[in-house]
Amino acid sequence: MFHFNITARNNRARTGIFTTPHGDLLTPVFAPVGTQATVKTLTPEHLKDINATLMLSNTYHLYLRPGDELVRGMGGLHKFMQWHRPMLTDSGGFQVFSLAQTRKIDDDGVTFKSHIDGSTHRFTPEKSIAIQENLGADIIMAFDECSDPNDHAYTKLAMERTHRWAERSVKAKTRPDQALFGIVQGGVNADLRSASAKFISSLDTPGIAIGGLSVGETKDEMHATLDVVTPLLPEHKPRYLMGVGTPEDLINGVLRGIDIFDCVLPTRLARHHSAFAPEGRLNMMNASFARDERPIDGTCDCYTCKTFTRAYIRHLIVAKELLAGTLISIHNLRALIRLMEQSRVYIAEGTFEEKAPVLLEQWSNNAKRNK
Amino acid sequence: MFHFNITARNNRARTGIFTTPHGDLLTPVFAPVGTQATVKTLTPEHLKDINATLMLSNTYHLYLRPGDELVRGMGGLHKFMQWHRPMLTDSGGFQVFSLAQTRKIDDDGVTFKSHIDGSTHRFTPEKSIAIQENLGADIIMAFDECSDPNDHAYTKLAMERTHRWAERSVKAKTRPDQALFGIVQGGVNADLRSASAKFISSLDTPGIAIGGLSVGETKDEMHATLDVVTPLLPEHKPRYLMGVGTPEDLINGVLRGIDIFDCVLPTRLARHHSAFAPEGRLNMMNASFARDERPIDGTCDCYTCKTFTRAYIRHLIVAKELLAGTLISIHNLRALIRLMEQSRVYIAEGTFEEKAPVLLEQWSNNAKRNK
Repeated sequence: MFHFNITARNNRARTGIFTTPHGDLLTPVFAPVGTQATVKTLTPEHLKDINATLMLSNTYHLYLRPGDELVRGMGGLHKFMQWHRPMLTDSGGFQVFSLAQTRKIDDDGVTFKSHIDGSTHRFTPEKSIAIQENLGADIIMAFDECSDPNDHAYTKLAMERTHRWAERSVKAKTRPDQALFGIVQGGVNADLRSASAKFISSLDTPGIAIGGLSVGETKDEMHATLDVVTPLLPEHKPRYLMGVGTPEDLINGVLRGIDIFDCVLPTRLARHHSAFAPEGRLNMMNASFARDERPIDGTCDCYTCKTFTRAYIRHLIVAKELLAGTLISIHNLRALIRLMEQSRVYIAEGTFEEKAPVLLEQWSNNAKRNK
Repeated sequence: MFHFNITARNNRARTGIFTTPHGDLLTPVFAPVGTQATVKTLTPEHLKDINATLMLSNTYHLYLRPGDELVRGMGGLHKFMQWHRPMLTDSGGFQVFSLAQTRKIDDDGVTFKSHIDGSTHRFTPEKSIAIQENLGADIIMAFDECSDPNDHAYTKLAMERTHRWAERSVKAKTRPDQALFGIVQGGVNADLRSASAKFISSLDTPGIAIGGLSVGETKDEMHATLDVVTPLLPEHKPRYLMGVGTPEDLINGVLRGIDIFDCVLPTRLARHHSAFAPEGRLNMMNASFARDERPIDGTCDCYTCKTFTRAYIRHLIVAKELLAGTLISIHNLRALIRLMEQSRVYIAEGTFEEKAPVLLEQWSNNAKRNK
């Protein structure tokens, strides 16, 4: 039911086709995040229009609200939210450690209080898998512990626990129509990352995720970690770099052999009026755009850029109209999806390594807001 | 450039085609309100999908933000907001009297403070027309004073001023590609309404609006007022009942010969989670919908009803996801637009008068929230 065929290679960068029950994913791919069974302010039609193929949704959030049993009763998450393309759910681990209150970790699992109403809940690897089976995404994740990358002693303990939890996750899984990915942890310690890459690879899951990056480490540390991990992973399985990232992060990830990315950045930036553009990340509320008849990005093919001026989008922001967030979200997501489409073309042509510095230069202004 | 051809009649109800520079309007028609150059949370594509043909935008709001001079510089309101179908702007009078602070009325015009920043501004009939010419809608309104319907003495003074302002508005108008409508006032006083209908008709504007209703009077008073006014208006000109209303108001208006309606109700209700449905207005947050697999309205052909369950919409509301407002807005607007489409069919068939009681019965539950 799940196959991954590599279709072209440029050194470590590669294109592939990952076959899932809801269709083929062309990789490298960027997945918009639909935390609460919706990519904020967008309809599924908007997402299809920008050629989104994979969507991520969050186990922690959907477990709490509306509840995974309810989603199962409604026919699963695809049907509930009317997204009929491939879908991925995380394990809930990251959110428990970053959002929930008063958590208590033991070897069996984590007890935590809901960030919504303070009620007490417990996740174990078995529980995370059961929830993800109720939700029914095509790709599901092993339950893991994501630790502070600066605490090396604890990182080793957390990594070892993540390995035991990965084994339990594999054992707990029952649905044949879901691909479970193990997660490599180990912070920014090369020895730990190396050990984790080998251990997780040994579980022979149909794909492998790299967790615990983009959580406070430097870009050099992220790249060095990827340089340790990806060469140790099996070639013929998709690799998913969790929660990453900026346009530059995506290019750097593809260069290092990553196939799947997800991040809230494009939609979160959009809600704060920040747009990806060739001249750098734009604060669309800037008064200089008041009479600017250009689109956000004249090279972009999205509905927003084909239809509206910067002046109109600025007006919507100043007038506190929510449509601004919708229109910028469409553009920002399309920018990253288009970057992955371009990368696939360059890899197929055999020019990605050569063009990556140009792409990185082109996107370098977008690391920070500069307009 | 503007023609109104009546195509069918059922007693006082009629269908017609109003030709404008941006296309033909089939009447009776309901216009969604895009106060600040956007129908809140919807794209122009959404509006085309529900077969919206006429959109209203607000002169007072656009004058203050982003400014009518800016809109003119950007090529006019149609281009600025990318709505290429017919558009109507009000005169700003109603908003000055309902939203602005510390207003001072004299015979020449109104001085008021902006509700946004307290800055002082002045509208006169000439200024209102100049703003509306900068905005460039197909249908524009004479500047009028809308008074408290319960203050009969003042209502007469306000009506007389409205008549003088209507004459000045007609004189101030310069653009041949805009149709200026005079506005009948006079509160709920039959004598005043009768005088106003005759006076405004004498100005020979290409259409006539009825203002000052749905502002606190009873339904019986609204109907009685329409029964006085519409028989006095020229048959061959479109009649616009401003700021109305509920589904029942629309049916009652069509019965009394009204051709054009607008109201914020469908979108405002949507933002408060209230949806038009056959069994009555639904509070979509109601716990009884948690696992309801039905659409809002099984008879509706809108994107929301063809795609999503009540359970999903309720989840979005509970999870505070803005998409809920978008989806309910699409449905609520489509419900009124569809009601006008149905009415046109019935009038063309000669059955509207006969079917109106059934339609009224069908919609009667929607007067109040009952679920």
